[in-house]
Amino acid sequence: MGLTSSSRASLEAGADPLTVSRPPQAGTIAIAGLGLIGGSLARRLVGRGRTVIAWNHRDAPYERARAAGIECVPRVEDLAAAIPDVLVLCTPLRAMPDVLNRLAPVLDPSTTLTDVGSVKGQVRDEVKAVGLDDRYVGAHPMAGNELSGYAASDPALYDDALWAVTYDETTDYGRMLTVMDMISAGVGNRMIVLDDDTHDRAAALISHMPHVVATALANELTDTDERNIAQALAAGSWRDMTRVALTDPDRTRAMVEEDSANVAELLRHMSARLAVMADVLERESSADPQIVRRALAQSRDFFAKARPYREFKAVDGMKTGTGAECASREERFITVSEHDWRSDLLESAKRGEHIVRIDSPCTFRVQVRTALR
Amino acid sequence: MGLTSSSRASLEAGADPLTVSRPPQAGTIAIAGLGLIGGSLARRLVGRGRTVIAWNHRDAPYERARAAGIECVPRVEDLAAAIPDVLVLCTPLRAMPDVLNRLAPVLDPSTTLTDVGSVKGQVRDEVKAVGLDDRYVGAHPMAGNELSGYAASDPALYDDALWAVTYDETTDYGRMLTVMDMISAGVGNRMIVLDDDTHDRAAALISHMPHVVATALANELTDTDERNIAQALAAGSWRDMTRVALTDPDRTRAMVEEDSANVAELLRHMSARLAVMADVLERESSADPQIVRRALAQSRDFFAKARPYREFKAVDGMKTGTGAECASREERFITVSEHDWRSDLLESAKRGEHIVRIDSPCTFRVQVRTALR
Repeated sequence: MGLTSSSRASLEAGADPLTVSRPPQAGTIAIAGLGLIGGSLARRLVGRGRTVIAWNHRDAPYERARAAGIECVPRVEDLAAAIPDVLVLCTPLRAMPDVLNRLAPVLDPSTTLTDVGSVKGQVRDEVKAVGLDDRYVGAHPMAGNELSGYAASDPALYDDALWAVTYDETTDYGRMLTVMDMISAGVGNRMIVLDDDTHDRAAALISHMPHVVATALANELTDTDERNIAQALAAGSWRDMTRVALTDPDRTRAMVEEDSANVAELLRHMSARLAVMADVLERESSADPQIVRRALAQSRDFFAKARPYREFKAVDGMKTGTGAECASREERFITVSEHDWRSDLLESAKRGEHIVRIDSPCTFRVQVRTALR
Repeated sequence: MGLTSSSRASLEAGADPLTVSRPPQAGTIAIAGLGLIGGSLARRLVGRGRTVIAWNHRDAPYERARAAGIECVPRVEDLAAAIPDVLVLCTPLRAMPDVLNRLAPVLDPSTTLTDVGSVKGQVRDEVKAVGLDDRYVGAHPMAGNELSGYAASDPALYDDALWAVTYDETTDYGRMLTVMDMISAGVGNRMIVLDDDTHDRAAALISHMPHVVATALANELTDTDERNIAQALAAGSWRDMTRVALTDPDRTRAMVEEDSANVAELLRHMSARLAVMADVLERESSADPQIVRRALAQSRDFFAKARPYREFKAVDGMKTGTGAECASREERFITVSEHDWRSDLLESAKRGEHIVRIDSPCTFRVQVRTALR
């Protein structure tokens, strides 16, 4: 692993982190929901030496889960009774309110509550509604495939996965470190730490809003009586840009509606960008050479604006291999302050740094993974 | 090959096509431009028994082309002097005006002129500008890859390819049949026949406009200071929807500007669709339950509208195999009238029928390849 020379120098000089006490550890982890994500997480944690206790709304996976070393309990309340360090909600978003209502009266204050939901603001609201927000830390692993259920679970689903860990103004730093220990030492993954809103805005940008755009493209096709001609001429670009419009429309709609405010705002941005380009293309045919000149410059600017993304993807494409290539990623250390850890960690995430190890409660080893200029 | 029972019945009953005379044949074909598309076309035609004479603006590929059985000539004017049945312009769009200017004074009236350009209206305008429109038929093969130049040429590039053959109100039907013979019997491909405008609108819908949308998505990312967070959370849907934004922006811009009126109109449609969905998502949070109810219904309608595309892709996915699966495509015959062949052929294309053989000057065997409801 390559450390930057300045980081290595400060490490060798014995630069002390703010505190040298050991960060809290997540030794016993409870998993509510043994589907694809929860089942894979449970198996991975057991495989890496953690104690895992699990519950599922149907006991169908229990026999195989027990054979994999996972202790299975009949009721979700039994997870709380075991007083685990962390309880991870891996149920679908729609089942969260019910599970939270059952946990609220019995969850020991020492247990930290987290989840793996893809929208963070909504989950925190539901946690608040049952009064468990003082012990909650949000989490969202970038892991999954098109399958579902424990039968499809696979510890390798988490290979080299990134998690988003989310906070709000009330989040307890120690509890967050416990969840971060589960992710880094427990699962062996990397993470970024950010507030719920920033997470949900980013998820809207790279997933929820594009699903609406892909569907709008498909609708443009189905709305014309020349649809079979257009489809006959279609090649890879059309196929790739409409692929997500082929997925279950009810699931897509639910996903979009869970993050509706962010998606609506981004759709307005996109709507405006496309309208501007329509204007520009029309002005390029103007009789006034000055208007044409200005329009051509705007068109060039539009296509040039994506350049940082093109440059990042060109470099990233070279690094997403295995072995030697991965090892060449730049690593450094970050130290956060007791009072400003929220903004310190958010700024680190904005710089494209992913936390790969907790060195002390305030010092983290990070890898520079995404860094668009 | 599966004929529909009614088609087979009429065939067995000896139902006569409108005329039994043989359609014109393209025995000798001239190719101007031995790049990836022209070189592959020349090699494929030679391999299937046609006489091919070729010219390229540089003679670098001549040695290999001659070894492949292609007669190579030093000047584009020499192609005209050979009085071929068809002369195919395979030069880049930007080189067309120059090549056309050189051919105009020397092209024999018996030679039919065609091309392989991806925008048909513009090429026809350039052909008209040099007075060759009386012998021109437009053509656009859906073939290509990310490579370029004769060295990358491969007759297999045209395996199972579809061509668009385009006409306007002045097109000579006999010349069009000559080009169609080159495509069906010569290259061994299928085709749809349509007017230039319909072609260029369809190409804008499934390629040119989506390139602008992909770039707008990438710009949405590069415009936020949370770009590294968003990119960190990105998965397959984002990668697929922005892939074409990574290609050479100058080439994309040129492509969009060649078809600017159609692209502008489609961008306005898309802009409006996205703005409507932004409104709908915002109204779903209204305090008025009637407004919420109506918004939820609109949201369902938006995602339901793509259903014919989903259903088509689900069926098409099963058919795009080889052997038995391909052979199961429905085949039938169409007959066009002497006066209404334009609308007869356009309607066939709209029904998702691809012409695979010329049976007589007015009867074609077609395969139902794309049929969205």
